Amino acid sequence: MCKAPKNKHLGQKSKKMQKINETIKNITKLDLKIGKKAEQRLDSLTKPVGSLGKLEKIAKKIVMIQNKSKISLKNKKIIIAAGDHGIAEDGVSAYPQEVTKQMMLNFLNGGAAINVFARHIDAKITIVDAGIKGELSPNENLIINKIGQGTKNISKEAAMSYDDAKESIKLGIKLVEEDRKETNIIGIGEMGIANTTSSSAISFVLTGEKIENLTGKGTGIDDAKLQNKINKIEEAVAVNKPDKNDPIDVLAKLGGFEIGVLTGVILGAAANRIPVVIDGFITSASALIASRLAPLSKEYMFGSHISTEPGHRVVIEDIGLMPLFNLNMRLGEGSGSALAISIIDAAVKMYNEMATFKEAGVSEK
Amino acid sequence: MCKAPKNKHLGQKSKKMQKINETIKNITKLDLKIGKKAEQRLDSLTKPVGSLGKLEKIAKKIVMIQNKSKISLKNKKIIIAAGDHGIAEDGVSAYPQEVTKQMMLNFLNGGAAINVFARHIDAKITIVDAGIKGELSPNENLIINKIGQGTKNISKEAAMSYDDAKESIKLGIKLVEEDRKETNIIGIGEMGIANTTSSSAISFVLTGEKIENLTGKGTGIDDAKLQNKINKIEEAVAVNKPDKNDPIDVLAKLGGFEIGVLTGVILGAAANRIPVVIDGFITSASALIASRLAPLSKEYMFGSHISTEPGHRVVIEDIGLMPLFNLNMRLGEGSGSALAISIIDAAVKMYNEMATFKEAGVSEK
Repeated sequence: MCKAPKNKHLGQKSKKMQKINETIKNITKLDLKIGKKAEQRLDSLTKPVGSLGKLEKIAKKIVMIQNKSKISLKNKKIIIAAGDHGIAEDGVSAYPQEVTKQMMLNFLNGGAAINVFARHIDAKITIVDAGIKGELSPNENLIINKIGQGTKNISKEAAMSYDDAKESIKLGIKLVEEDRKETNIIGIGEMGIANTTSSSAISFVLTGEKIENLTGKGTGIDDAKLQNKINKIEEAVAVNKPDKNDPIDVLAKLGGFEIGVLTGVILGAAANRIPVVIDGFITSASALIASRLAPLSKEYMFGSHISTEPGHRVVIEDIGLMPLFNLNMRLGEGSGSALAISIIDAAVKMYNEMATFKEAGVSEK
Repeated sequence: MCKAPKNKHLGQKSKKMQKINETIKNITKLDLKIGKKAEQRLDSLTKPVGSLGKLEKIAKKIVMIQNKSKISLKNKKIIIAAGDHGIAEDGVSAYPQEVTKQMMLNFLNGGAAINVFARHIDAKITIVDAGIKGELSPNENLIINKIGQGTKNISKEAAMSYDDAKESIKLGIKLVEEDRKETNIIGIGEMGIANTTSSSAISFVLTGEKIENLTGKGTGIDDAKLQNKINKIEEAVAVNKPDKNDPIDVLAKLGGFEIGVLTGVILGAAANRIPVVIDGFITSASALIASRLAPLSKEYMFGSHISTEPGHRVVIEDIGLMPLFNLNMRLGEGSGSALAISIIDAAVKMYNEMATFKEAGVSEK
């Protein structure tokens, strides 16, 4: 797949690239025969055939992924990766860069929206510092694995080295592997001031859609700042010349660390047959990179919502994700993933717990 | 509001009509000042202003309805009303009429989709036999309050008497009142073979939309049966000549018992400041009747999903309900209400539990 220059090929022979390639090789196609069996059970349950719509599709997909007699989402996990972005200095965000670190403290103290929603669905949260600016004190709920003190400013240079991009993906894979036996579903989320700018740039290169259609107001900038953001994305692409056929090159040049980590989480989840729920625009950029590196990883992804960021819809359509709701959200953090897991959980319980027509003595058509 | 003939005016002086009128009088406009205060709190929470979209609107509305310093949805209730429909004999449904009773047994045994979803959100279920055909054995989870052994066939005559229509609404009000102190939110659901036919007929009279745009395949009929269903609805309206300015007359002539009970539940919930969640097309017909009897009741209603029944969208737009998701569901039973309560619950927890910018030490814009 990669048409990369020589130094990258050297990198491919590295241990990091080996790990990524092995993981990709372990992602297998879902078994349609198992899907058929799941459909038979769904059709035997006391409801008109197909009347639970997307919930039935969700249950079927979970059966195919878990491939067990009794599917379960008992152990739910939200993985939030955070990183800072050098481009924040160009005024692309409504908030100052220090908010990334401040929000990490908020996550650790349980006061952010994602903490509330994770408690709501009874999920554990793993918080990863993949490269925010500044240092957080050690905390049992925090994994510190900094790839840098924020990325470089992509309007001037590459966000990170090719090697660091691989490192970020490898880190995400490792996060999944370490706890894979205790994980039935993963919802991903992110934090990083200015990371919609990175996501728009990545989506532009990988989808070919116009930058204007991929760029929104993020946390809430005005029209003038939006135009500046679009200009900066154009500069970033012009300066860095990312190779759209090499998703790792795109990640390295346009950032960010958290986006790479979540790409790795998705690949790791797929390789370990764990369903993974994609949140808003930034995590969808991670999913886009994962889908280009390993098209089969799409079979393990679940959509959640449609955010108000215009690029989100473009990217989830490119990947083929089925959104479950549209609540006009644009927060990130995994807030949409968590709410979607509540619905996915309901679908799984429906599959496991509903009576069949036979069991209940209900007449069929 | 009623332009009803003399015998109905007599009815209005009855105790039943008194109860309904009293209930309607107790439904008051929500206080916008309380809404403003809720907005202030929402804007102080650690998220970009407005970034939780509809969840913020939901939380604000719950604050206005409950009007308490600490809002809560601790005690959740699903009320399922069931009734049979005489028009079932005309082949408008994919399933035989006995399925209504069989599904009631399934509800009582915990094997239906709504049982699974009610457990998922930790809600109690109240099941009401408002007039199914046949008799169910007494059960602690069942309220037997039959208004008849199914309605009459509306393609030939009125579904029920004007007095029975009032009785059904009064029953719904009573159901809410009896347990109002132990109820923080109600989701409504229904069961009754052929009740989409009644719902289409009611919606046609009350909205003026074309019958074709209000009539769907219900539990799954073919095109020929769909045309028959449309013809039967036309006959029902032609034979009964319901008075669109008298919603109780529309209910009496087009049915059904469960639709009337749920109209009463909505009015009772609104009068007792309890949020009430509307499910699919049939419960939306109940909500439509309630909205015509008491326009202020709309302020206490919450939308849930958009079902695949074409009439559903028309009716929720007429009422002004905000749907939260579109999962291509068409089951009824309160399945959409229950899933929506999970999201409404998350919104309430967000309002109660999130840290403010000040508390968390996070910089604002």
